[in-house]
Amino acid sequence: MSGPWKRASPARGAGGGQQRRDELRVHGVNAVREVFARRPQALRKLYLTQSRLSGFADVMRWCAANRIGYRIVEDDDLRRLAASSHHEGVVADVLREPVEPLSEWLAALPDGPCCLLWLDGVGNPHNLGAILRSAAHFGVAALLVPDSGELQLSGAAARVAEGGAEHVRLVALSDNGRSDLAALRAAGFTTAATLVSGGDELFAASLPARLVYVMGEEQSGMDRGLAAACDLRLSIPGSGAVESLNVAAATAVFLAAWAAAVQAA
Amino acid sequence: MSGPWKRASPARGAGGGQQRRDELRVHGVNAVREVFARRPQALRKLYLTQSRLSGFADVMRWCAANRIGYRIVEDDDLRRLAASSHHEGVVADVLREPVEPLSEWLAALPDGPCCLLWLDGVGNPHNLGAILRSAAHFGVAALLVPDSGELQLSGAAARVAEGGAEHVRLVALSDNGRSDLAALRAAGFTTAATLVSGGDELFAASLPARLVYVMGEEQSGMDRGLAAACDLRLSIPGSGAVESLNVAAATAVFLAAWAAAVQAA
Repeated sequence: MSGPWKRASPARGAGGGQQRRDELRVHGVNAVREVFARRPQALRKLYLTQSRLSGFADVMRWCAANRIGYRIVEDDDLRRLAASSHHEGVVADVLREPVEPLSEWLAALPDGPCCLLWLDGVGNPHNLGAILRSAAHFGVAALLVPDSGELQLSGAAARVAEGGAEHVRLVALSDNGRSDLAALRAAGFTTAATLVSGGDELFAASLPARLVYVMGEEQSGMDRGLAAACDLRLSIPGSGAVESLNVAAATAVFLAAWAAAVQAA
Repeated sequence: MSGPWKRASPARGAGGGQQRRDELRVHGVNAVREVFARRPQALRKLYLTQSRLSGFADVMRWCAANRIGYRIVEDDDLRRLAASSHHEGVVADVLREPVEPLSEWLAALPDGPCCLLWLDGVGNPHNLGAILRSAAHFGVAALLVPDSGELQLSGAAARVAEGGAEHVRLVALSDNGRSDLAALRAAGFTTAATLVSGGDELFAASLPARLVYVMGEEQSGMDRGLAAACDLRLSIPGSGAVESLNVAAATAVFLAAWAAAVQAA
């Protein structure tokens, strides 16, 4: 790292090089730029390479005006900070957005068409990021995630989401799936379990304007009890040549079907 | 590596640890199993961990009966052989399937519904693998790729495809896009350029049973001249929150739309 970085170390707060739990370290041009565009006050630290300076002049002016630390560093430093070689020359520590409980979030939700994704154990950060990007594209209002925090957004997921993580809220499910289903129904949502096979064919289904898709874990699919408790059980018909679509590809197809149904209505 | 491996080295042929150009090193359980299921005679070498033995007993019996070399190795060896930590305990060297020229392949193609993907510069192996998996799911007959061989299947792509690479042929375009378009039209195909924005809305389009989607490069999209020369130009409408869908997610959505249209016809 360059000189100022080393000398500045004691001034970086008690955490030193550690991340705080309420902060997320994001990397990648679109991921960092989208945080800055949507909530610049969330920016806590910025690290970038010399070659990124011109493209981030506005962000650095903001940092200077608001006493946010930024450092010009080498590629290797960014690789260490991001724990990834896909940093694209820029890393930032940003405040996480609070994860609201489902009941509170639903209470403030306006009427009208709305699609939600309930993630029942999608753990792979690449898949989570890909799902966030597709969700942002199709205007999904929120991802419903376990209250345990096990599906917390990571820097890798935020990069793959290409800025989409800033457009889709994470909302916390309770630890009681049936009461969550009931709360969603009370808010006018139809709940649809998504199954690798055996569900009603997606293309023949009539999809409502307010819809929750429940997406299962990559290997074992979604919980059977939860699937049985949903209003619909849907599958994407296929050739059988592969066991299933990847969960992110399947999510994109389900979301497109909802968008097409809303458009046709 | 274990003893037998080291001693066997001189017997492994002139190539030693090198891969031959007509061979592909695949890794991952589904990728290797699918090669064995479809064309066991393509198997040239098999490497697996002790813990995979029971699940691959049938493959090892084939190897023994056909004098194909196999080795029990350590995790670290597989990581080196596969150049990836995602080897899932099994690596195999297999003969590549020949890449047929488009004109020859079309001459032998039966009538009836058929969807093809023309890849105009999709280079990322993860995206290529994800596209292959979705293509296999929706029964795509072939991926049309540049004749240059730059889009050769890699082990990483085959793993991500989860066996799908064995179900979708790679077919070589000529170096003349217009003559390829003409050959496809002569075989009854409609050609559809896929654009991030500005095309006709996919959900409102009437899709024919014989269709070629042209998918563009991840960053810059597809070639404008090629897009203009296609019969259709299609886009997936979105919220605008992100610039575009990922190319693999977009491919899944386009393929699902074709499958739905064929099913409804």
